[in-house]
Amino acid sequence: MQKKAVILANGAFPTHEIPLKELKESKHIICCDGAINKLEKAGLEPFAIIGDLDSLDSELKWKYRDIIYHFSNQDTNDLTKAVEWCIANKFNEIAIVGATGNRDDHMIGNVFLLPQYAKKVRVKMLTSYGMFTPIVRSKNFESYTRQQVSIFSPNRDTLITTANLRYALTNQQLEMMWQGTLNESMGDSFRIEFEGGPLIIYQEY
Amino acid sequence: MQKKAVILANGAFPTHEIPLKELKESKHIICCDGAINKLEKAGLEPFAIIGDLDSLDSELKWKYRDIIYHFSNQDTNDLTKAVEWCIANKFNEIAIVGATGNRDDHMIGNVFLLPQYAKKVRVKMLTSYGMFTPIVRSKNFESYTRQQVSIFSPNRDTLITTANLRYALTNQQLEMMWQGTLNESMGDSFRIEFEGGPLIIYQEY
Repeated sequence: MQKKAVILANGAFPTHEIPLKELKESKHIICCDGAINKLEKAGLEPFAIIGDLDSLDSELKWKYRDIIYHFSNQDTNDLTKAVEWCIANKFNEIAIVGATGNRDDHMIGNVFLLPQYAKKVRVKMLTSYGMFTPIVRSKNFESYTRQQVSIFSPNRDTLITTANLRYALTNQQLEMMWQGTLNESMGDSFRIEFEGGPLIIYQEY
Repeated sequence: MQKKAVILANGAFPTHEIPLKELKESKHIICCDGAINKLEKAGLEPFAIIGDLDSLDSELKWKYRDIIYHFSNQDTNDLTKAVEWCIANKFNEIAIVGATGNRDDHMIGNVFLLPQYAKKVRVKMLTSYGMFTPIVRSKNFESYTRQQVSIFSPNRDTLITTANLRYALTNQQLEMMWQGTLNESMGDSFRIEFEGGPLIIYQEY
């Protein structure tokens, strides 16, 4: 059975309609720590609040005492704690919003954490401009003609083959992180096949 | 002799005072293609305009006809063309502004292009939140106590040692792109030593 959560990370609160819609229609909003302040301002209710709670004032701590889950693990960041909580609570599909639009190093770190989550759960990250999807096996993507697509290959020796992208890859490695950027879909779907991996696929909205 | 250029990339026009100051005080603003529209709105003068000029209207093409440099190389992006133009014209220090705050895949691609430039020229990228500096050899950084610092290691086998950062590395590899994020300076300088490389250092303002 599909059990879907939306994680609100502690970056900039979503402004684009697509991540906003995910958030507003979700029955299970999982809040990273300080993001609860922004969620309250938006008039939305959290299903759970995860983090070390350093940044929560005592009024909020009391108000949400039944749904606050405290983790003191210093080895993972708030986003990872929230993902792990979702997995432990049997959510099998996760959309992450609010993870960008703030410190650039956090944004890059969060994007490159996605493959680690993808080993355990279906996950995507929705930003103000597009969607990151980490994949651990070959996959077809829904698309539209001329959709801008970028492929990131953290393990540089991964052999990648694409179908229906303008600049085709055939058993090719992306040795540099920028080499798979600026591609484009040729129709209403495209396919990424690979040996090794994982990969991170970005699709502009 | 120091000859410094500021490249205005075609992302979001800078709003933070630090990249804005770089831009306003520069005698050599090198504009990536469509960014000229934003530079004009800000009342600033370009020293050169680089790109394939697809997005320039004919009035601008005429106005700046003497300083427009056209490249039709499809294998590099506009930012790389601008950097190469600077190197060819004997600039030996480059600050890149306006390269973030727009499509997330462009932002990541641009950040991971920096080491390629760093082999040939001193370069840094200034965003709304901090500064990326690619390094090809060990380096001391000016800092301040509690400055947030992240280290990105595109070649995962690079052995890194840090001095005066809160979470010290000693001949360690960063196998995952997020592993070097969320560090912190302990004073008015820190040092990054490494074998292999290159690395990209992020310092929050």
